[in-house]
Amino acid sequence: MKWDLHQAIEGCLRHGIGGIAPWRDQLEAAGLDSVARHLRDAGLRVTGLCRGGMFPVGSKAAWQKVIDDNRRAVDEAVALQADCLVLVTGGLPEGSRDLPGARSQVRDGIATLLEYARPAAMPLAIEPLHPMYAADRACINTMAQANDLCDELGDGVGIAVDVYHVWWDPTLEREIARAGRERILAFHLCDWLVPTTHLLLDRGMMGDGVIDIPLIRSWIERAGYAGFYEVEIMSRDNWWARPPDEVLAVIKERMATAV
Amino acid sequence: MKWDLHQAIEGCLRHGIGGIAPWRDQLEAAGLDSVARHLRDAGLRVTGLCRGGMFPVGSKAAWQKVIDDNRRAVDEAVALQADCLVLVTGGLPEGSRDLPGARSQVRDGIATLLEYARPAAMPLAIEPLHPMYAADRACINTMAQANDLCDELGDGVGIAVDVYHVWWDPTLEREIARAGRERILAFHLCDWLVPTTHLLLDRGMMGDGVIDIPLIRSWIERAGYAGFYEVEIMSRDNWWARPPDEVLAVIKERMATAV
Repeated sequence: MKWDLHQAIEGCLRHGIGGIAPWRDQLEAAGLDSVARHLRDAGLRVTGLCRGGMFPVGSKAAWQKVIDDNRRAVDEAVALQADCLVLVTGGLPEGSRDLPGARSQVRDGIATLLEYARPAAMPLAIEPLHPMYAADRACINTMAQANDLCDELGDGVGIAVDVYHVWWDPTLEREIARAGRERILAFHLCDWLVPTTHLLLDRGMMGDGVIDIPLIRSWIERAGYAGFYEVEIMSRDNWWARPPDEVLAVIKERMATAV
Repeated sequence: MKWDLHQAIEGCLRHGIGGIAPWRDQLEAAGLDSVARHLRDAGLRVTGLCRGGMFPVGSKAAWQKVIDDNRRAVDEAVALQADCLVLVTGGLPEGSRDLPGARSQVRDGIATLLEYARPAAMPLAIEPLHPMYAADRACINTMAQANDLCDELGDGVGIAVDVYHVWWDPTLEREIARAGRERILAFHLCDWLVPTTHLLLDRGMMGDGVIDIPLIRSWIERAGYAGFYEVEIMSRDNWWARPPDEVLAVIKERMATAV
């Protein structure tokens, strides 16, 4: 995106988009207080703050730093009156091959953060990421894992479902039903392109790829989800290179025809 | 690889490697009869023929063509006295978003092929591929799916386990144990690089990535697997660009230190 967060808020208003999920780097660049004020004045719903997480680390000192940063993320989410704080859990620590260990750290990290997030009434949304990110972004890679974590950790934690990450999963329908209305805190849309030329930055616009979005949407709605549909298209060479107003117009059109 | 199949056979002999799993395009280029003779003279074990599969199609005519081609693959595997025919199941047909439908076609395709492979005593090895290939290469993406297929289809079908495709799977240990000695027909090695720069052609040499190969090997051995360890490193810009003799020497060394 070529817009800063303030311009994005204005863009949403111009295109009749009722909610937004800011990223923290954009938030920091634009300033928390002024963004919070702008959002309130605009009457825009903050569907989530992206993102906390990144729990697995290699040392005790690093651990405390991660927890502190996650608490700040909770504070920011509260300041924005966000519906949830989205957690990208983190992958393997530098130099590590211990995937079970990383997954334990994620569980411990969320458990620790919950002690801070629950009194603040800020729900945490675990976002399972596609298995191709298991090493470097998130070692929680399926809805089943996220559901298991929710079972274990209790109140205050749910799931952000992104079709890009979970569309391939043969247990998806079952695990969405298992998650149910209470746990599904966000629903993210984009599409999987064939071919995909970059692991991170080649996502597609809804309708341009192979994901049966209406099918997954039907499962999400059957589970009782009645929240926003969030569009997140990391696309360096295509959508990010276009004028943002054009992108929002296409999104609006595709929401009607491809979702 | 810069070698043709005959040169690869000689390379294996030179480096004290006791088995090989040819790809069919290489086999066709070198000639089935002369390769079969060469392999017999060399005393090389054929651990598998790569590959049959690619079942999901968009029309009845295409279906018959796929089945016919898979039967030829069985014939070739028999001619080479291969231990199994590896199946890369195929993804979505051109223009389709019907993933459950593709998975049904895979089941039907293997069931049909089994009628031909069983009398020929040629085991079929389903290779679950990483979820990032669900659209264009294989819609069977987990060991659990492969085990379910084996449960359904009965004798004559097993699984090829490739660490690259399954290392991220939180159910891997359980599903390897479930597969057991009877079903595990092949064990493929390479490594997952961080960062990975290409979805297909940027695999790593064992030890250069983040997969805990000794751990997965321990699960495979505990399941009773006593077959070959096959190294398959699709690496256009690194290992494929080096002299093949150098690559084989590194493989030998890494088999001792990183597996």
